Amino acid sequence: MLQNGEQYSKSLQKLRPNIYKWGELIKDVTTNPSTSLHVQSVALSYDAAFDEEQADVFTHESHFSDQTAHRWNTLMKSPEDVTGNIRMKRAQFRKTGTCQGATCTGWTILNALWAVTHEVDAALNTPYHSRLEKYLRFVEDNALVLAGAISDAKGNRALKPSQQDNKDSNLHISKVVPGGIIVRGYKSQICGVAAVHEIICVPGNGYGESEKHFAVAFAIPRDVEGLTIVETRRPSDTRDEEEGWDSPKAGAITQAYLLFDDVFVPEDRIFLQGEYSYAGKFIEYFTALYRAAIGACVAGQGDILIGSAINMARANGLPRKIFQDKLNQMAINNEITFGLGLGAVLLGRRHASGVWLPDSLLAHVNKTQVARLPYETKILAQDISGGIAETGCFPSYKDFQSPEYGQDLIDALAAGTDGETRARAARLVEWLTIGGGVPGCMHGGGSPDGAKLVVKALEPWEEYATCARKIAGINKELPDPVVKK
Amino acid sequence: MLQNGEQYSKSLQKLRPNIYKWGELIKDVTTNPSTSLHVQSVALSYDAAFDEEQADVFTHESHFSDQTAHRWNTLMKSPEDVTGNIRMKRAQFRKTGTCQGATCTGWTILNALWAVTHEVDAALNTPYHSRLEKYLRFVEDNALVLAGAISDAKGNRALKPSQQDNKDSNLHISKVVPGGIIVRGYKSQICGVAAVHEIICVPGNGYGESEKHFAVAFAIPRDVEGLTIVETRRPSDTRDEEEGWDSPKAGAITQAYLLFDDVFVPEDRIFLQGEYSYAGKFIEYFTALYRAAIGACVAGQGDILIGSAINMARANGLPRKIFQDKLNQMAINNEITFGLGLGAVLLGRRHASGVWLPDSLLAHVNKTQVARLPYETKILAQDISGGIAETGCFPSYKDFQSPEYGQDLIDALAAGTDGETRARAARLVEWLTIGGGVPGCMHGGGSPDGAKLVVKALEPWEEYATCARKIAGINKELPDPVVKK
Amino acid sequence: MLQNGEQYSKSLQKLRPNIYKWGELIKDVTTNPSTSLHVQSVALSYDAAFDEEQADVFTHESHFSDQTAHRWNTLMKSPEDVTGNIRMKRAQFRKTGTCQGATCTGWTILNALWAVTHEVDAALNTPYHSRLEKYLRFVEDNALVLAGAISDAKGNRALKPSQQDNKDSNLHISKVVPGGIIVRGYKSQICGVAAVHEIICVPGNGYGESEKHFAVAFAIPRDVEGLTIVETRRPSDTRDEEEGWDSPKAGAITQAYLLFDDVFVPEDRIFLQGEYSYAGKFIEYFTALYRAAIGACVAGQGDILIGSAINMARANGLPRKIFQDKLNQMAINNEITFGLGLGAVLLGRRHASGVWLPDSLLAHVNKTQVARLPYETKILAQDISGGIAETGCFPSYKDFQSPEYGQDLIDALAAGTDGETRARAARLVEWLTIGGGVPGCMHGGGSPDGAKLVVKALEPWEEYATCARKIAGINKELPDPVVKK
Amino acid sequence: MLQNGEQYSKSLQKLRPNIYKWGELIKDVTTNPSTSLHVQSVALSYDAAFDEEQADVFTHESHFSDQTAHRWNTLMKSPEDVTGNIRMKRAQFRKTGTCQGATCTGWTILNALWAVTHEVDAALNTPYHSRLEKYLRFVEDNALVLAGAISDAKGNRALKPSQQDNKDSNLHISKVVPGGIIVRGYKSQICGVAAVHEIICVPGNGYGESEKHFAVAFAIPRDVEGLTIVETRRPSDTRDEEEGWDSPKAGAITQAYLLFDDVFVPEDRIFLQGEYSYAGKFIEYFTALYRAAIGACVAGQGDILIGSAINMARANGLPRKIFQDKLNQMAINNEITFGLGLGAVLLGRRHASGVWLPDSLLAHVNKTQVARLPYETKILAQDISGGIAETGCFPSYKDFQSPEYGQDLIDALAAGTDGETRARAARLVEWLTIGGGVPGCMHGGGSPDGAKLVVKALEPWEEYATCARKIAGINKELPDPVVKK
Repeated sequence: MLQNGEQYSKSLQKLRPNIYKWGELIKDVTTNPSTSLHVQSVALSYDAAFDEEQADVFTHESHFSDQTAHRWNTLMKSPEDVTGNIRMKRAQFRKTGTCQGATCTGWTILNALWAVTHEVDAALNTPYHSRLEKYLRFVEDNALVLAGAISDAKGNRALKPSQQDNKDSNLHISKVVPGGIIVRGYKSQICGVAAVHEIICVPGNGYGESEKHFAVAFAIPRDVEGLTIVETRRPSDTRDEEEGWDSPKAGAITQAYLLFDDVFVPEDRIFLQGEYSYAGKFIEYFTALYRAAIGACVAGQGDILIGSAINMARANGLPRKIFQDKLNQMAINNEITFGLGLGAVLLGRRHASGVWLPDSLLAHVNKTQVARLPYETKILAQDISGGIAETGCFPSYKDFQSPEYGQDLIDALAAGTDGETRARAARLVEWLTIGGGVPGCMHGGGSPDGAKLVVKALEPWEEYATCARKIAGINKELPDPVVKK
Repeated sequence: MLQNGEQYSKSLQKLRPNIYKWGELIKDVTTNPSTSLHVQSVALSYDAAFDEEQADVFTHESHFSDQTAHRWNTLMKSPEDVTGNIRMKRAQFRKTGTCQGATCTGWTILNALWAVTHEVDAALNTPYHSRLEKYLRFVEDNALVLAGAISDAKGNRALKPSQQDNKDSNLHISKVVPGGIIVRGYKSQICGVAAVHEIICVPGNGYGESEKHFAVAFAIPRDVEGLTIVETRRPSDTRDEEEGWDSPKAGAITQAYLLFDDVFVPEDRIFLQGEYSYAGKFIEYFTALYRAAIGACVAGQGDILIGSAINMARANGLPRKIFQDKLNQMAINNEITFGLGLGAVLLGRRHASGVWLPDSLLAHVNKTQVARLPYETKILAQDISGGIAETGCFPSYKDFQSPEYGQDLIDALAAGTDGETRARAARLVEWLTIGGGVPGCMHGGGSPDGAKLVVKALEPWEEYATCARKIAGINKELPDPVVKK
Repeated sequence: MLQNGEQYSKSLQKLRPNIYKWGELIKDVTTNPSTSLHVQSVALSYDAAFDEEQADVFTHESHFSDQTAHRWNTLMKSPEDVTGNIRMKRAQFRKTGTCQGATCTGWTILNALWAVTHEVDAALNTPYHSRLEKYLRFVEDNALVLAGAISDAKGNRALKPSQQDNKDSNLHISKVVPGGIIVRGYKSQICGVAAVHEIICVPGNGYGESEKHFAVAFAIPRDVEGLTIVETRRPSDTRDEEEGWDSPKAGAITQAYLLFDDVFVPEDRIFLQGEYSYAGKFIEYFTALYRAAIGACVAGQGDILIGSAINMARANGLPRKIFQDKLNQMAINNEITFGLGLGAVLLGRRHASGVWLPDSLLAHVNKTQVARLPYETKILAQDISGGIAETGCFPSYKDFQSPEYGQDLIDALAAGTDGETRARAARLVEWLTIGGGVPGCMHGGGSPDGAKLVVKALEPWEEYATCARKIAGINKELPDPVVKK
Repeated sequence: MLQNGEQYSKSLQKLRPNIYKWGELIKDVTTNPSTSLHVQSVALSYDAAFDEEQADVFTHESHFSDQTAHRWNTLMKSPEDVTGNIRMKRAQFRKTGTCQGATCTGWTILNALWAVTHEVDAALNTPYHSRLEKYLRFVEDNALVLAGAISDAKGNRALKPSQQDNKDSNLHISKVVPGGIIVRGYKSQICGVAAVHEIICVPGNGYGESEKHFAVAFAIPRDVEGLTIVETRRPSDTRDEEEGWDSPKAGAITQAYLLFDDVFVPEDRIFLQGEYSYAGKFIEYFTALYRAAIGACVAGQGDILIGSAINMARANGLPRKIFQDKLNQMAINNEITFGLGLGAVLLGRRHASGVWLPDSLLAHVNKTQVARLPYETKILAQDISGGIAETGCFPSYKDFQSPEYGQDLIDALAAGTDGETRARAARLVEWLTIGGGVPGCMHGGGSPDGAKLVVKALEPWEEYATCARKIAGINKELPDPVVKK
């Protein structure tokens, strides 16, 4: 059932306040300046369902009925469905210039769990898949948005969860109780929490038997008892709380730390409970889906980087064509991560449960590029834009309002266009390249080094060596040498 | 109707000798050392049709019957069909380490012409599409291989064909005669001619009305009267004519100059004759198909580069894992061009004529990467392999046979393996990176600068600028400044 | 005469307040949080004169006596002297992690003017060189620091200064009066002004005769009548005004807009007054000196990036060696810009006036690398450091102080070390890569595109073409083709 | 005493023939097509001593008298002297487009040995330094050229020399006899041997006591009894033996395998004999000198790549300016390796023995760039030049001579210039980028991985970490974590 942005916003106001920033409780996420921009951004995605031009991108046919649902409430069962996700991501970034956690990770988790629970149930006769179906119907019927909580706080990177001094470093089942479980621990850097109704928690890694208490997947309302949420502090984020043009205020990333202090989860919302050997499966399916799409996010932001660089050139008094080579390179970078994700989709396969799983190898190759190409794109945007945009190096909005020298500043900023326009254009470049609009391309959705481990695991190295041996006319085996100590 | 490699080779021997190299006529392309390696490589592709493991890749259902045909004799009507082409290319490179012109460009031309002739006929009531269908049936029934001749000699790059001092710089219709046309001029750098039965000639560029004589497409037997073919000289190609291991002799590129001296083409083999406004269409469709697949070629060669680097490491006495980071980077490069082509396929569309046309933008973005990433892959292969492989810097096969010092050389070359094996492994790296096995990644299938022009033409720059304006809160238009002179 | 940091700070307090930020007048630059960090950073450079280990780097023999002076008060007359500048820059960045405008541009301007005034006087019999000498003695005797004001606000980039609608877009002589000149207009993005005693203004470009009023060089006290200074707003700069560890508070860049409203400059402080043809000379000498040294700044920041990445790895629980390849690459980037500047010094020449001028070509090549390599270094620092450092994505200092959940956050942050240490280490990476510590490498000291124009102008392209012709055995001339229209 | 090119050539003819290629003895290196081009290239360097414009670059004052000597016969005692080496290398490449082994490595070895023998003698009271001085006087008096033999054949890279199955894998002292030593074993890939009078052999690595027999340095005449030399086979090297323009024939690399079969070396030509702990010192001094200069070689070849790309553009009918951005990038690459070497020189120090030793860190950083930047330069040359130059993809010289179709080929090649000129220009690009003119930038003078080990050893990592800790406000130690097993 579709909802519009206003309905969505109102529904958030009904939740119990349990989110903090700057040491203070946020009473209303829809008006608090630390969270309202993200809520507004999500509201735009809701409204898109009722916009003729955008409805195709932001909605899809329900998987349980023939009704239209918000796309992020539907399963992805075909290459076209995953492509729909990819297109929506790029479109969403074009609207707001940055991330929208609330319609992203949680949705992908649901799809990956759809496949995993299907496998667990088949193997172990567990009831997870039907629980998940019920939960999905609830989500769709209420047109909800979900955050997805994967990353644990982790603690010492050289140790397993069970080896940590502080067990809470990773979210885990602390007790099994009648009708459910008690969970506790920390999830960190969770996107979009402030703008969602529900949070879906999953294992942050593949696990062995000793780690079985950490192999847990479940959904909770955002305002569940026992959960404290602390928003993170990002570059220049205080500007969002100010008047004026020092931040664009079109979109905003939010990320949060989730502190679970013995939270009760009822049975019908538990989708994994100790089946540790499926934690790795979940990671595999999730990352294939997530990393096939992640290149569309950075492509969408790249589109805005192109646009903002063109605007700055013009604001400086220069036509676009002077920078065409650089703009081309920016576009090429965008299309590589976008197109490579689509390639992963085409090479994918339909899982027995019905969902479409992109090719893992190409999806992880894409992650390595997402951790590299957007940086070049940003550098080019700064290169084109000139010094004032590079580090936002010009006076604050407040100074422009000074009765003594404000007009002088406006005059000093004027170039190919008036001073205010140029200031706004420059602040956008700053925000996109060195400010609050920068998404975490490097480690978001996992590190590039992790992706390279997958590449290493999936490439058939010995087959390549054998092909090369044949071509070289070498008829003997050529194994790895045994190095004498 | 399928043929095997031997049947194919025999059929080539029936053609009139009209190919030259080193100033001399090649009597039999299947035995002459300048051409036999390419013929053998193509023969392997024919034989693959009868190999259980490879048949899927190298054959496909006919488009005119329910019979199985060589894949390169079939139309590509779906994403799966184009993916089949892409997979075949990578597989073919893994077999021979390099290009196979005979099953490549001609096939792609047929598909692009299928769409173009459909459009021309619909608009101008011409008979080209049905002629092409008849020709395709002939090709399939006889299991032929075709070269595709696109690039004209061009002459002065700053002038149009009709402005050249020498009209023969570009192939053109010199006279219309009863039952056909007379063509003359030069096509240059045409791949695989020595190993084909037929050559299909098409316009090398989009044309305006003044260039209508150059807008011609037709098929001819390779040994047609009036056609002289001169093979080109490539790096270290004389080694293919020698005994020993100084070249791998597993595959070989051939490229040729075609000199048309008033060649007659009968009507039923003419597919464009002066419809200049469709020359550009042809280029558009051809490049979309060709550049979606071209990344699979370099991926396939990249696979062999990985394999050959692993072999060299071992031949030097070192295990693979020491170089894992570099090998990962090589694999990532391969998968980018491979996967980006697949992305272009997925974003494509079915043409009214039935063939599937990949997305032009992504296909051309892929071309820009094909002109860049394989170079890094080669550098890494040299980096891993060590000095002797880098420029093939060790004595010739003949020296290894010397009764006086040959054994000393073998001993001097020995390292992690015996000297001969190491020499063979090193010569393969040389051949792949700085020798006869290097395909023309930079300009093959068109230049990267040309691809960038397409990127420039297809990206919605102004839309990006408008999105960025909205996000920046700029409400006024921001057009290109008019520069005062 | 040497001064220590305290003496220096006190001397600043005597100046008339004429600097604004956030719309308010800064009463005392040594205590105001927007400016005090830069003052403290400069104070460290003063104190270094009295530190045995650092004195060599931060002082030098006077050029007018045999006394020891602060290095930034001395002329650079030999390769060793310029190397001393280069070493001081790297050392200064290692202390504070970022820029120190007050001991940088002004000093370099003095050296470039030393050469230019020598030439102007010789040609036009002007008295500038002796005025400059007198001024230099004053600067040295009082151990002053100078800001250098080059960049004009510029206005429309497609127009010359005299063509601008608003003449004030570029600083210019508005009137010649008895005993001096009246100047007005805007200088923008001027580094370190808040921490200096004097400002030296010079032309921002080469000029022709129509631009003679813009060809002016002079020195003024920072607090001269008629000058209003507005500090710029940089990423996350409000954190410097907060308690806690959300910014490192070790150093800080300041940059400002200078608004000259009919400022009087007395004759003895004027060093160019309309000699427009020497404006270009000044730019040439200045950029050669400045860009030979600029690579040392980014190398020094790169050293800190290496250090901060190592600290983050350890704070995450991982040893340095895991990241050795990436650390090597960071170090290589640092040494390239550092070493290339030294190369420019060695290839330089002694100007007739006595100062040493580095080679322009290598200095500008260095600028192109300064606009590129530090970005890779920063990316690698983020890559090594993990997600929390990438965008500073964890809660604010204030949240860590919360009695309700502060301890939980500290526990959640703990990894290879305690939570506070890890938070501090992460905030440093954020500050260096996406926060207030990022210097303007791209356009600081001029744009990379401008540097490329110099490369284009100085490379002997035709000589290269001739050498290649000879080697190719081409005996005829091969000029640029005349393209027919 | 200076000699001219003719005198030099004649002197080579007096040597005993002991060089082989293609399994056959080379009777006269000055006329045999496998070696004559390198001899001619060296002859040009001799002749340069008598050319007014070049004498400054190719000669220098003797270190033993006030006479003028060939530069490669003099010690390098100052930054200017090493800069002279660097300039000569770039000039030499501009003449011939490629390497000149005979005036390169041997000279650098002499300088490194000058320092090492000074140290050994001081420590162990050996007579090496005075022997070396005597030898140097002999070399200078006779205006000789020397090859430098460093790289051993090595055998299994995972084992030390003494652990190899075949001890001859590394050159070693097999017996000490009255008046000298007997040496045997293999040196590989030794540059320029065919064009020299003498060969100076040195340890290929640092050694411990178990390897003392491999720690040997000495000089021998090229034609000494017991030495067999086999020239290596490089890409397309057979073209040097042909008539016509298929290779430029302006310069040529030669590299050889040296097979020592119990060669006697008299005492006065021995400069190290078992002092194993100085082998590492030798490598350190040699690589500092060699790698400071190596960037000038690739810069010189890069100059020719620029020139040849300009020529190709024009031969294609296009003006230079179309490719200015790419040409700029090529020039920047050249100047980086050139300038970084100069930076290493400036940061160097004078050794107690009198020779100037460049800074090791910057020299090795330069090596890493020499293994990377020239590859980009070559790619750009191919990019600009178009398809026929990329892989030399056009017919052979012999085909152009065909009475039947030769004229057609010449016509087909014509573009912005006549066909022959364009063919010559294209063959030069092929030769420089994928042919016999490609020097071994990757591993020549040692591998980039080896250089990175030096970077790792010389950077003060812990100092960086400490600086960063201070800036971050972390007051506790932050050592590498001890990883629990």
